[in-house]
Amino acid sequence: MVILGIDPGYAIVGFGVISYEGNHFKVLSYGAVNTKAGVDFSLRLNDIYDGVTQLINKYKPDVISIEKLFFNTNNKTAINVAEARGCTILACVKAGVPLYEYTPLQVKQSVVGYGRAEKRQVMEMTRMLLNLEKIPKPDDAADALAVAICCAHSSGSLLGRL
Amino acid sequence: MVILGIDPGYAIVGFGVISYEGNHFKVLSYGAVNTKAGVDFSLRLNDIYDGVTQLINKYKPDVISIEKLFFNTNNKTAINVAEARGCTILACVKAGVPLYEYTPLQVKQSVVGYGRAEKRQVMEMTRMLLNLEKIPKPDDAADALAVAICCAHSSGSLLGRL
Repeated sequence: MVILGIDPGYAIVGFGVISYEGNHFKVLSYGAVNTKAGVDFSLRLNDIYDGVTQLINKYKPDVISIEKLFFNTNNKTAINVAEARGCTILACVKAGVPLYEYTPLQVKQSVVGYGRAEKRQVMEMTRMLLNLEKIPKPDDAADALAVAICCAHSSGSLLGRL
Repeated sequence: MVILGIDPGYAIVGFGVISYEGNHFKVLSYGAVNTKAGVDFSLRLNDIYDGVTQLINKYKPDVISIEKLFFNTNNKTAINVAEARGCTILACVKAGVPLYEYTPLQVKQSVVGYGRAEKRQVMEMTRMLLNLEKIPKPDDAADALAVAICCAHSSGSLLGRL
């Protein structure tokens, strides 16, 4: 099963592609869709939609896993991230790939084993689970790989839904 | 000049289409793109994108005017509205129609003459300016028409930008 994990954003959309077979992980790719600061925001949304669509066409994931948003404070950035996440989700729906959403708590719980884990612990555990030498860069790609792992760990019940 | 005004949302996306020639308004259409509660949210985003695209194809607006979001409290609804607004903006960009955004303050200022106007005053003034017998329903459509008027009133400077 090929899983595309996505860490939503508007300047940087992190992604990680893994295969998960017989309880073994293999990293196929990771990185980010970047949009340029100073460009009209509507065009940045367009770049995100097109960029995510290209990723799906390239890696043909069986499922896509995306992190849910959680904001402590309500501000312009939060609105922009949510607008970008809407376009990211739309790209997945238009491509016809099943989409699963996980909260930051669920991701931490799944990767580290407890929901209050520090960001650094999640990244280090992601590195270990995926048998990588270094923590992937940018951070958004590492986060996206963690979201993909969370989806893999849930895939017993998930496969029942497919 | 044909203007499509949009009041963003995820359950109801209000729209209003007006023509504005020689300082005269004419209402061409108004209403809402509705999405069904209980349906997976990603499919509702898809319905919004497709619905707005159909409106653009049908009325072929010269410009689109959409209200900016402003939230006092940060919650799940705010995130969902922003995700839906992102897909609404994407539909406008993909259709290649120039898009203008106005804050609620700018809309009130433009339609009623002062930014602290009550919602009801804005609706009543919208009705008068557009020479309608009754305030349009749903409220989201009336709001969308107000956003379109705001764009028309700004069109001196706007036309310079086109």
